[in-house]
Amino acid sequence: MTYQASNEEHPIEIINIASLEGRVKERMEKGAFGYIRGGSEDEWTMKENTSSFHNKTIMPRVLRGIDHADLHTKLWDIDLATPIIQAPSAAQGLAHEKGEADTAKGVAAAGSIFSISTYANTTIEDAAAAAPNAPQFFQLYMSKDDGFNAFILEKAVKAVILTADSTLGGYREEDIVNKFQFPLPMPNLAAYSAESDSGDGEGKGIAEIYAAAKQGLVPEDIKKIKDLTSLPVFVKGIQSPEDAEVAIAAGADGIWISNHGGRQLDGGPASFDVLPLIAGVVNKRVPIVFDSGVRRGEHVFKALASGADLVAIGRPVIYGLNLGGAEGVTSVFNHLNKELSITMQLAGTRTIDEVKNTRLYDAK
Amino acid sequence: MTYQASNEEHPIEIINIASLEGRVKERMEKGAFGYIRGGSEDEWTMKENTSSFHNKTIMPRVLRGIDHADLHTKLWDIDLATPIIQAPSAAQGLAHEKGEADTAKGVAAAGSIFSISTYANTTIEDAAAAAPNAPQFFQLYMSKDDGFNAFILEKAVKAVILTADSTLGGYREEDIVNKFQFPLPMPNLAAYSAESDSGDGEGKGIAEIYAAAKQGLVPEDIKKIKDLTSLPVFVKGIQSPEDAEVAIAAGADGIWISNHGGRQLDGGPASFDVLPLIAGVVNKRVPIVFDSGVRRGEHVFKALASGADLVAIGRPVIYGLNLGGAEGVTSVFNHLNKELSITMQLAGTRTIDEVKNTRLYDAK
Amino acid sequence: MTYQASNEEHPIEIINIASLEGRVKERMEKGAFGYIRGGSEDEWTMKENTSSFHNKTIMPRVLRGIDHADLHTKLWDIDLATPIIQAPSAAQGLAHEKGEADTAKGVAAAGSIFSISTYANTTIEDAAAAAPNAPQFFQLYMSKDDGFNAFILEKAVKAVILTADSTLGGYREEDIVNKFQFPLPMPNLAAYSAESDSGDGEGKGIAEIYAAAKQGLVPEDIKKIKDLTSLPVFVKGIQSPEDAEVAIAAGADGIWISNHGGRQLDGGPASFDVLPLIAGVVNKRVPIVFDSGVRRGEHVFKALASGADLVAIGRPVIYGLNLGGAEGVTSVFNHLNKELSITMQLAGTRTIDEVKNTRLYDAK
Amino acid sequence: MTYQASNEEHPIEIINIASLEGRVKERMEKGAFGYIRGGSEDEWTMKENTSSFHNKTIMPRVLRGIDHADLHTKLWDIDLATPIIQAPSAAQGLAHEKGEADTAKGVAAAGSIFSISTYANTTIEDAAAAAPNAPQFFQLYMSKDDGFNAFILEKAVKAVILTADSTLGGYREEDIVNKFQFPLPMPNLAAYSAESDSGDGEGKGIAEIYAAAKQGLVPEDIKKIKDLTSLPVFVKGIQSPEDAEVAIAAGADGIWISNHGGRQLDGGPASFDVLPLIAGVVNKRVPIVFDSGVRRGEHVFKALASGADLVAIGRPVIYGLNLGGAEGVTSVFNHLNKELSITMQLAGTRTIDEVKNTRLYDAK
Repeated sequence: MTYQASNEEHPIEIINIASLEGRVKERMEKGAFGYIRGGSEDEWTMKENTSSFHNKTIMPRVLRGIDHADLHTKLWDIDLATPIIQAPSAAQGLAHEKGEADTAKGVAAAGSIFSISTYANTTIEDAAAAAPNAPQFFQLYMSKDDGFNAFILEKAVKAVILTADSTLGGYREEDIVNKFQFPLPMPNLAAYSAESDSGDGEGKGIAEIYAAAKQGLVPEDIKKIKDLTSLPVFVKGIQSPEDAEVAIAAGADGIWISNHGGRQLDGGPASFDVLPLIAGVVNKRVPIVFDSGVRRGEHVFKALASGADLVAIGRPVIYGLNLGGAEGVTSVFNHLNKELSITMQLAGTRTIDEVKNTRLYDAK
Repeated sequence: MTYQASNEEHPIEIINIASLEGRVKERMEKGAFGYIRGGSEDEWTMKENTSSFHNKTIMPRVLRGIDHADLHTKLWDIDLATPIIQAPSAAQGLAHEKGEADTAKGVAAAGSIFSISTYANTTIEDAAAAAPNAPQFFQLYMSKDDGFNAFILEKAVKAVILTADSTLGGYREEDIVNKFQFPLPMPNLAAYSAESDSGDGEGKGIAEIYAAAKQGLVPEDIKKIKDLTSLPVFVKGIQSPEDAEVAIAAGADGIWISNHGGRQLDGGPASFDVLPLIAGVVNKRVPIVFDSGVRRGEHVFKALASGADLVAIGRPVIYGLNLGGAEGVTSVFNHLNKELSITMQLAGTRTIDEVKNTRLYDAK
Repeated sequence: MTYQASNEEHPIEIINIASLEGRVKERMEKGAFGYIRGGSEDEWTMKENTSSFHNKTIMPRVLRGIDHADLHTKLWDIDLATPIIQAPSAAQGLAHEKGEADTAKGVAAAGSIFSISTYANTTIEDAAAAAPNAPQFFQLYMSKDDGFNAFILEKAVKAVILTADSTLGGYREEDIVNKFQFPLPMPNLAAYSAESDSGDGEGKGIAEIYAAAKQGLVPEDIKKIKDLTSLPVFVKGIQSPEDAEVAIAAGADGIWISNHGGRQLDGGPASFDVLPLIAGVVNKRVPIVFDSGVRRGEHVFKALASGADLVAIGRPVIYGLNLGGAEGVTSVFNHLNKELSITMQLAGTRTIDEVKNTRLYDAK
Repeated sequence: MTYQASNEEHPIEIINIASLEGRVKERMEKGAFGYIRGGSEDEWTMKENTSSFHNKTIMPRVLRGIDHADLHTKLWDIDLATPIIQAPSAAQGLAHEKGEADTAKGVAAAGSIFSISTYANTTIEDAAAAAPNAPQFFQLYMSKDDGFNAFILEKAVKAVILTADSTLGGYREEDIVNKFQFPLPMPNLAAYSAESDSGDGEGKGIAEIYAAAKQGLVPEDIKKIKDLTSLPVFVKGIQSPEDAEVAIAAGADGIWISNHGGRQLDGGPASFDVLPLIAGVVNKRVPIVFDSGVRRGEHVFKALASGADLVAIGRPVIYGLNLGGAEGVTSVFNHLNKELSITMQLAGTRTIDEVKNTRLYDAK
């Protein structure tokens, strides 16, 4: 039985991001939905990711003459229409026939950054071609095989995101219950297989793919990746001030704070709770991208006000992709941008810089 | 299809204020009810508004000889039978055929202050006529058109409430789901339309009305309003100590602490939680009105003990209006006055001044 | 229709005290049950009374050789088999035909203190006769009529409890919904009526009875009561350190910490939360009785360890009375004594004095 | 009617430990299940035991090159494949026909420590024979009869666990409701009976068994046990720093922190909440075993990081025994070991010593 993904292409109506999950659940194959939605073990950290935004409140300023909000911002020389970017996630063919190509197109239409995973169901080249001139990042799951690393980094477009928090997969019970296996090929791996072998690398199983992955990164790995590419390198999965310091010392060009959407270590802190600690250590030396748990414009505002330069969203994009293809992805960005604009205007902030300079208050 | 509002006129039985919502829900058109009841986004701030009163407790004094409670108080030269006043709210024709005229009458019968909104379904003059000699306030949604501001401020009776927290409408999902549009005309706008145009301003859509509103107030706007009226001016929607200071420096005659009943910025603090901070900054230079979340006499007591001079109620009044017209409104005041009296007497306080001098204790 | 109360006389099986409420609810007339069970307004303080015991934990000591627990204690010269006494409550004829006479008998069988209310359905004399030689206290609702005070205090047996927290009745919604009226005569009032009038005082309505009550006690009232009786006088309803000091200065022989089981001021603190503050001020000058929310031997232990000398239970006794008459009341004491013994032994304390010297720890 | 226990012998599939309870409930006699599952009174402490692990979070380190986790550790000269050991529990014949013999075999297969209770349904000798050379501990419920203590301690294999927190049984309501009585003989008691008497000691009732137990241990009892055996002696049931100090001063070779799985004192702290306090006092003078509430590898990690040297599990083992005999027991260890390995690797720790040196963070 071949896997049937969505092939719809249209904007979607969105009341709020949280409600997308239920809409997708009704349409998607159970195992695939479980893989996308699920977190690890008790999903405590996953739930905390979102509820922790209530640990801080925004004390609105109402006499600052704010008659509109301007979401534009920059990362290095990249102009962005919004501080909300897409968080890389694997296997987007589960959500839509066009997979990462459609996500790339939808994110580009929103004027934001798309990142393609090593474990994408689309090649880096095809995703880039789907959104020419858009600032595509590449999420590397580093391999023990340096030939693979060199081969694939050469294809990266704008920046590299080195995943550091996947020394192994988190214990996600729903995948066990569903006996979930990736049903679709991974062409970036196949391409390397084709190049290095005599062409029969296609159809490689997930077990082999994971076996090739390098578990347990060390600071020297950051240096090695820096040597293999001239692009800037984010280190993703940072959850402690110590690791942020180590990564910067090893040459990281950016810190990507994430707990993988609660999919890895359960019992760790909410990503938002550690953000201020890490931002204090980073101290503006390199940009900070923040993800995990963001479902509201309010959450984006609070993350920016707590030290993030950009805020990434993962599952919401995949849900938008499933419900409406590239246009569905753009709808998700449009909706969150709308909520963020309203929040900014009601909070008394006009620009992203003003948001970043807003002091939040501890909730009672 | 014309909108059908209530036309009942009688006192109502009230067990508690919270139960009114369910009674109104059964009778009112869904969109109108959603507009009145709803808060923004997750309604987190809206719920916190009421639950936050539990963050403080009243430590009762039982040996102070309190055999009755006296609710009388004053605002400037205005004698009031109760520290509970009505919070201005738009479009009361949704609740009752007589709209603001009935509310004005019911509030006057309770010996309290009625405030009419720019976006009322009754003219300022008609509402005033419904309750002659009552201390009617006027809630201004400032316009970009100074002619409008001058035209309408001239009609204000006793004081002006300048709304500062509506730089744009909060994101209220229930209105989106219901595709809610105001079904009734706004005669205060129509009157200005009639005066300045050649008379065809009636039936103006909500979109145009909101387009005319001035978003993003600045301190100079307070000065401008002060120049256009000799009445005292409250600035409404203050949620931060900084804004209170700015408003007073710009000439505000009173500070109205409110988060619009949780209808604007979601993720902001409960109004009660910021009250002591703001009262500390105001330091009795001008009177403080407090609203958002008040459903019990106990809440009124705690707000007064935390720095408020008067406490305003919004939705409860509209529910009373729907259930019993002017007399229903009076019933709401009577009920809360009864609860407040009992609370005062059990707490060991005889007068509103004694309540204000009561120290609350942090809940465990 | 005459009111039908229970007339059963037998011990009752008790798994835990909390489960008694449901058993009584099935048998008792709705209005009477609502009156006994109910608290005021949102019942927030009532619920906090019990849940607040979790704010402290008992850190057990296991190497102190405790092979039994001794519950005996003393109040002045009164030997008690348990530190758990009965809290006075009105109108026990609602629960059982024999009313306070059976309660007195059941409490005496448990070797503890019974207190009879001014508003009992049994005379002070009849209750005393039901349990000869038992240490019966008398709960006075002071009257504006000093003749009444003198008349009734003369009948008191062992000590007087002056109720200070009932300047008026709390707002108990269940009584309003049920339109509850006391269905039974109040013979202590009738007796005074018979003496002072020409004998037609019987059947006096509740309205008149409450009208005769003195609302708003002052310290001088304590002195006045002390002048009218040679018995020791507890002041009941203390919830603040200030009032404890005032009461002692006015001559109180004991402090009775209570918030009337959450039936008076809603929004006040849990009684257990204020106990340490008040005990600190009292500083062993006079004995402290504590009530409100006690449903476990564990709660008794924690109250004793927080400064109480004796711990009183109200509703549980009435439920026992309803379910089994005098023997049912004794069953309630036996059960709580058993739980207290187990708690003491597991905590590493042998005597009530050792419990009082146990330090509790703040829960996380 | 004879008691029917499970006789299944096979590995079991485990998604998570919490789900075992429901699977066992469906199969086991109600009274036996209630005895095993239940805690005392409100089960507040029992629930806190597990939920309190959320009071601390693990801040993961992701750049330390962790490509595997090594669970091996040592207690004295005992090599262990895992820091997770079995907590002694009585009457395992309730779960499985082979009782403690199967548990011993299953624990040995996991390379861990099995402890047999005085109140086992298997003799110490038979349990030891079921797992030759495995490091079997013996849990002593001390007797008032020193002959018994000497008789039974002589059979102990590797270490003695002196139970100190059972001065009497906790008040477990489910046992009362079910009128639970142990349906099976206790051969360790019978063996002593046979030796000292003329052979008719079999079938001794539970009441007599408990009557023989020494309630209320004192420090001298530790010394006495030390004199009766050359094995190291743990004192089990420590929940306060003071008792840890007392036990060590009296000669304890190890501290076993436990609140008996919430089965004794309700209203005491979660075992995990007191662990850091006690570890601070013990200060590595003797090893610490921790139990109560552990259901996840994450919990094991947090306990080790808070001062425990080994972490024991009670009910999960019994559930595994019921579902699959010796192999079911091993499955439980395998599952928790897997979760612990994943947690260690994701947290950035390779060895148990590194886990112990991890600093946890207070949850927000």
